[in-house]
Amino acid sequence: MLIVKKFGGTSVANKERIFNVAKRCIADFKKGHDVVVVLSAMGKYTDELITKAKEINPNPPKREMDMLFTIGEQMSVALMAMAMDQLGVRSISLNAFQVGMHTTKTYGNARLKRIDTERIKQELEDRKIVIVTGFQGVNKYDDYTTLGRGGSDTTAVALAAALHADSCEIYTDVDGVYTADPRLVPNARKLNAITYDEMLDLASLGAGVLHNRSVEMAKKYGVQLVVRSSLNESEGTVVKEVVKNVERMLISGVALDKNADRISVFGLPDVPGTVFKLFNTLAKANINVDIIIQSAGHDGTKDVSFTVSGDNLEEAMAILQERKDYLGFERIESDCDIVKLSVVGAGMMSNPGVAAKIFECLYNINVNIHTIATSEIRITVLIPAKDAVAAMNAVHNAFELRE
Amino acid sequence: MLIVKKFGGTSVANKERIFNVAKRCIADFKKGHDVVVVLSAMGKYTDELITKAKEINPNPPKREMDMLFTIGEQMSVALMAMAMDQLGVRSISLNAFQVGMHTTKTYGNARLKRIDTERIKQELEDRKIVIVTGFQGVNKYDDYTTLGRGGSDTTAVALAAALHADSCEIYTDVDGVYTADPRLVPNARKLNAITYDEMLDLASLGAGVLHNRSVEMAKKYGVQLVVRSSLNESEGTVVKEVVKNVERMLISGVALDKNADRISVFGLPDVPGTVFKLFNTLAKANINVDIIIQSAGHDGTKDVSFTVSGDNLEEAMAILQERKDYLGFERIESDCDIVKLSVVGAGMMSNPGVAAKIFECLYNINVNIHTIATSEIRITVLIPAKDAVAAMNAVHNAFELRE
Repeated sequence: MLIVKKFGGTSVANKERIFNVAKRCIADFKKGHDVVVVLSAMGKYTDELITKAKEINPNPPKREMDMLFTIGEQMSVALMAMAMDQLGVRSISLNAFQVGMHTTKTYGNARLKRIDTERIKQELEDRKIVIVTGFQGVNKYDDYTTLGRGGSDTTAVALAAALHADSCEIYTDVDGVYTADPRLVPNARKLNAITYDEMLDLASLGAGVLHNRSVEMAKKYGVQLVVRSSLNESEGTVVKEVVKNVERMLISGVALDKNADRISVFGLPDVPGTVFKLFNTLAKANINVDIIIQSAGHDGTKDVSFTVSGDNLEEAMAILQERKDYLGFERIESDCDIVKLSVVGAGMMSNPGVAAKIFECLYNINVNIHTIATSEIRITVLIPAKDAVAAMNAVHNAFELRE
Repeated sequence: MLIVKKFGGTSVANKERIFNVAKRCIADFKKGHDVVVVLSAMGKYTDELITKAKEINPNPPKREMDMLFTIGEQMSVALMAMAMDQLGVRSISLNAFQVGMHTTKTYGNARLKRIDTERIKQELEDRKIVIVTGFQGVNKYDDYTTLGRGGSDTTAVALAAALHADSCEIYTDVDGVYTADPRLVPNARKLNAITYDEMLDLASLGAGVLHNRSVEMAKKYGVQLVVRSSLNESEGTVVKEVVKNVERMLISGVALDKNADRISVFGLPDVPGTVFKLFNTLAKANINVDIIIQSAGHDGTKDVSFTVSGDNLEEAMAILQERKDYLGFERIESDCDIVKLSVVGAGMMSNPGVAAKIFECLYNINVNIHTIATSEIRITVLIPAKDAVAAMNAVHNAFELRE
């Protein structure tokens, strides 16, 4: 078997954890498997680098930020190779130049285009554990790029796809994918298996275990993902195309996204093109919007509400305010005191009444629903932030997700 | 003009110094010059990396040490580019992969083989200051290598040669090359100019301003070197092929090497091949020897003494002891309480009596000379460590080198 194993920053934050990871990889290697390890930068090292940079330049060129960031993973992989050597096992560390991790040109948020596999295959044939820097790539100018949030997961999945790996194991600080965040919903249950689509909805809706880019890529290339804990040996959750019926529940999880803020735009002229202009303005500024609701206003106008990630709220508001005349609205408002609660499950497609059950359950605990958005396998509501945990637990219990 | 400027670790040790270096480079850039900057790792960063590595593996693979080391310079160049951006000047940082710094394959002590200049030239044409990682290269396996001691100086000189630079300025914490170490000889005088050969002898004999590999390379490719202070604007010392007579003194400097230890091998069989076997054994272990003296022993044997660098003493003694039967000697001794004092000057070639003057001067202050070795432009004596400073000052005064 060829196994790709990805460990995040907390898993390699110090000497003991580095050896812990090394031993897990060596265990598989000694069973005869080929092992490729993808690592992030150690612990809070990326934050330290940001601090160093901002001291010198509050707004550093993105190209140079990536040049700085990439040293983080290079440190991790070199130290990991030293740990494996100390444990008597041959290994080799490789960075984005050495692997040939080709990306698009955008600094800070590049996409992987192509991975050269020759060097890795040659080192595996030579019976070494291959340790690869996550998160980083090289663009057509021969400059370092980084892959943005969840970048190391993406690296691991892309490597697994390029190498036709039998499994791609993503190690994290939780045991797997849960029906809800166990810190908020104490009786949340670990799932043994989940489909790519369900995982995608959970990932993009704030469950926070896997980034949706890596799940999308795994789905596209049919890479079997396993989400496991780096702290224990439990089996984790398998993410794959089809989950057998016996494993299947009506609902696979309840996700909470606290980082969603709502912007409401009032009094847009009710003529063609106004909504296009609005969202195009935001798209040009690279601001993603979600959960869009349009309603009739008064006197031939319309109102539009949408959510943005909390990081983008200030910038989005500033841009809209600046382009007020062009866009033609009367006024805008923002609301930070909301959260996005989503119920996800491929089972709901063939089961009417899921939405009604959610609304009933929120009504029972007196939670006011601001906005509703649905897809085939998910129902999302915006509710007041203060009600988040209670709502999550109520919904979780209503669908009998608990252990 | 195309100027290559090299700054060592102390010159980029913190934010203020980074900006100081940035401003010096920008001053030349704004005069219309093309500027290439070579940087070492910040301050004690390389030592920190060694500590990190040794915690994990007391004897880490050299290939992985180089993988770890190279992040140090990458940090320096990225931060420098951010500082220049903050000062409103366009620049770009490049590492060994991006430049194409091709070296031999030896990890930890590689030699530069070839430098690609295309990328650098293109960035210079685009009117950017180009900031290059010193000390590091890439070998034919596409692995990082480092150039060993004085590596960043070597990078700078090699770049100056490859780019046909008009000048290669090596910035250090002293004003230039002195007739002796000013910390030991208070009235030492700064030289305005010195030849490559004199500088080579001073470099290899412990003057410590420039590493001899970089001077050798400058001589080979006719690169004009300037040794200057990063702390002030003084003119520094020019190192070149021929120094005009008017600048010339009989002696250009007195150098002290405290790091030389002596090994004496007694009772070697006086037959052909024994000395070859002795030094070949050490060469195979990559131990450099210097100042070799052979004298007759008793009963058909001979004694051989030589100096090694203090770092190598323990290893050299162990290897010789281990191979005692093969080499056939009776016993070995080491002496750490000696120093190497050298007087260097192209002028001594045509002036007999220089050696006599040195011996007289040491006799006058009652210093016992262990060993004497001479070349065309240098006289070296081994003397007791306790007499080092007195001897240095006495010789310095005798040749009227003082200001």
